[in-house]
Amino acid sequence: MTIEEKFEMLGIDNAPGQESLQKEVELPAMGDKIPGPRVDFSHGDVNAHIPTPGSLEVFTKGFEEGAVQAYTPYRGRDTILAQTASDLAAFTGAPIDPASEIILTPGTQGALFLAMGANIMPGDRVAVVEPDYFANRKMVTFFGGQIVPVPLHYQGLKHGAGIDLTALEDAFRSGVKLFLFSNPNNPVGCVYTKEEVAAIASLAKRYGAALIVDELYSRQIYDGIPFTHLRALPEIPENLITIMGPSKTESLSGFRLGAAYGTAAVIDRMEKLQAIMALRCSGYNQAVFGTWFHEPDGWMEDRVRAHKEIRDSLMGIISGVPGVYARPAEGGSYLFITLPPLTVTLHQFIRLVRGLADVIVPPGTEFGPQFTDAFRINYSQDKEKAENALRRLFAVMERCRA
Amino acid sequence: MTIEEKFEMLGIDNAPGQESLQKEVELPAMGDKIPGPRVDFSHGDVNAHIPTPGSLEVFTKGFEEGAVQAYTPYRGRDTILAQTASDLAAFTGAPIDPASEIILTPGTQGALFLAMGANIMPGDRVAVVEPDYFANRKMVTFFGGQIVPVPLHYQGLKHGAGIDLTALEDAFRSGVKLFLFSNPNNPVGCVYTKEEVAAIASLAKRYGAALIVDELYSRQIYDGIPFTHLRALPEIPENLITIMGPSKTESLSGFRLGAAYGTAAVIDRMEKLQAIMALRCSGYNQAVFGTWFHEPDGWMEDRVRAHKEIRDSLMGIISGVPGVYARPAEGGSYLFITLPPLTVTLHQFIRLVRGLADVIVPPGTEFGPQFTDAFRINYSQDKEKAENALRRLFAVMERCRA
Repeated sequence: MTIEEKFEMLGIDNAPGQESLQKEVELPAMGDKIPGPRVDFSHGDVNAHIPTPGSLEVFTKGFEEGAVQAYTPYRGRDTILAQTASDLAAFTGAPIDPASEIILTPGTQGALFLAMGANIMPGDRVAVVEPDYFANRKMVTFFGGQIVPVPLHYQGLKHGAGIDLTALEDAFRSGVKLFLFSNPNNPVGCVYTKEEVAAIASLAKRYGAALIVDELYSRQIYDGIPFTHLRALPEIPENLITIMGPSKTESLSGFRLGAAYGTAAVIDRMEKLQAIMALRCSGYNQAVFGTWFHEPDGWMEDRVRAHKEIRDSLMGIISGVPGVYARPAEGGSYLFITLPPLTVTLHQFIRLVRGLADVIVPPGTEFGPQFTDAFRINYSQDKEKAENALRRLFAVMERCRA
Repeated sequence: MTIEEKFEMLGIDNAPGQESLQKEVELPAMGDKIPGPRVDFSHGDVNAHIPTPGSLEVFTKGFEEGAVQAYTPYRGRDTILAQTASDLAAFTGAPIDPASEIILTPGTQGALFLAMGANIMPGDRVAVVEPDYFANRKMVTFFGGQIVPVPLHYQGLKHGAGIDLTALEDAFRSGVKLFLFSNPNNPVGCVYTKEEVAAIASLAKRYGAALIVDELYSRQIYDGIPFTHLRALPEIPENLITIMGPSKTESLSGFRLGAAYGTAAVIDRMEKLQAIMALRCSGYNQAVFGTWFHEPDGWMEDRVRAHKEIRDSLMGIISGVPGVYARPAEGGSYLFITLPPLTVTLHQFIRLVRGLADVIVPPGTEFGPQFTDAFRINYSQDKEKAENALRRLFAVMERCRA
């Protein structure tokens, strides 16, 4: 394989946030534009839901601290590691040694990349959920691994993610040594039940497989649905990394802050990789970890409530459109919306929606090759604009209905 | 090879900045401590040489701009790419298309990692200079390439880097498809002559090899020494990436800002890799690129002058110590200092210096396995403290002299 062929497999034309760079494709005429303010559903709107109060001030203080904050060990500044480890231990329900079991990274994307790079050798078979976060499959490919998909039968379920545990055990039995999944699931927003999480942990332990659990959205769970942190279960595999960060729920993505915590030997390898990848999470930015889990009283509760209201309102719109399906998110800010048969392809459809309605959505195929009839929205948006934008999207859809 | 064996080769115990995490090793008794304020020569001191005036204010403005600055395309925000491309084109003397030929990255480390990852396939042979930046060799190893060293005969030269062009041509002839070098050289500080740069470019073109040129320190050249930007030569290879960033000279390392510019097809691949590595250079931080090449009048000249004075003072100390050699840096803030025979190993010596004199230096072996008698200092420090620290270091050295 040439380097060109390798990177052909890592296409980002349709990746969330890249829409402004999309190559033009030929589109059928589908009527006039439908006016309305642009909504970019590919990521949250930090103008509508602003960053944690005080985050800029904490950054500024870090900057003013100077050298000690600008240059930290590659895994992060010791005082920040200590506080973050303690907060995450309390949140997840199991201890974290700040000296050996945690690393700060450039965003949770960086944490994922390091965890995957610290576990995958070329030729390794790696199990990933479908649908799941768009970068997971690309990372396996980049590191020379082979993707072994594990389906999620999420549709129609009231609770749980519907992970196909038989497929997962088959994967482990066939030699898969690493399994990666997000909980709450991105893009569906479903939360794994305690039984599902325990079954994953127990299977991984039994087959000696490593686990990477992406819990990015685990602070934003609705309706008191119980959330199970795999790392706090009595039976866990020897090689386990959990990933999180003050990003989405906190609207701090512009700072690029992530954390990975778990097995010390893996954290060691991740630090070695970080040393050559980006040296460290930006020094001054690390200071902003100080706001994490220390938001003003009631602020997080308000944020979760506001997002639940948007979810409910958008679900109301969706359930009124025949042939369209989305499962209400139990956590996070995503809805994965399935379409009825159309006269155009999915990629034509998302471009038509962008051109005619000024609404941006990533196609389902970013989350698994088989999702040619779905798209994802991040509804961390201004509520009214989001409602209006979704209505415009469906108006374009009606023009394309088969 | 197992993943554990692979990462064994990427040791960071002795990497610059990691000293606080060094494992203890047994050391011979070498007398009492020599008191004096700690100096960490492993990186510059941004308290002694402060960041570009206005950088925090520009960051704050970026933060306040909100969503448009928090989330940018993976390669960077279009307005910032346009300005940076234009400034770098003027600085280097050759045009850069902001839409296709430049990417902003998490530090120049990120730029290097992306450029290497976008060029190396497992099994590829990659030529690197020895001595050169410590991460270069580790990156080749991580991406599964094989290192082909190209020696620098820098000692005693008045001008030029002394690159072994015969070794470079032999490497290309033997199938090396990528060559990476830093100019000014890190750790020596020598500047390649125009003839050397032109010879490298011409050889790479002739043999169809790719080039990565790390010009991180090219704004900090002393004594009017001519600096040749390879990319502006009439004869350059088809696959060429130049790397730079507002970091060292500008004391902006705490923001982690880097830029890579060159061949559009490689920049495309780098963006794909960045999409899964860290998504983007931190959104708010990108705003700080706005200060680059737009420092207050005379500020850069003062900074370069201040560093030249420190260099001259430290060279005065070095030249008074029998058996010790360093070539005066022509650019950048590094001196690569060669020691006389000692009764202890190099790694014992640097630990003794840290323990007895509170002075931190990375060992020469980080820059090539054969440099077992050298260490590097970054002299972007408070002048008086640096002089004092270097004298303490040599006092420890005298106790260890064979």
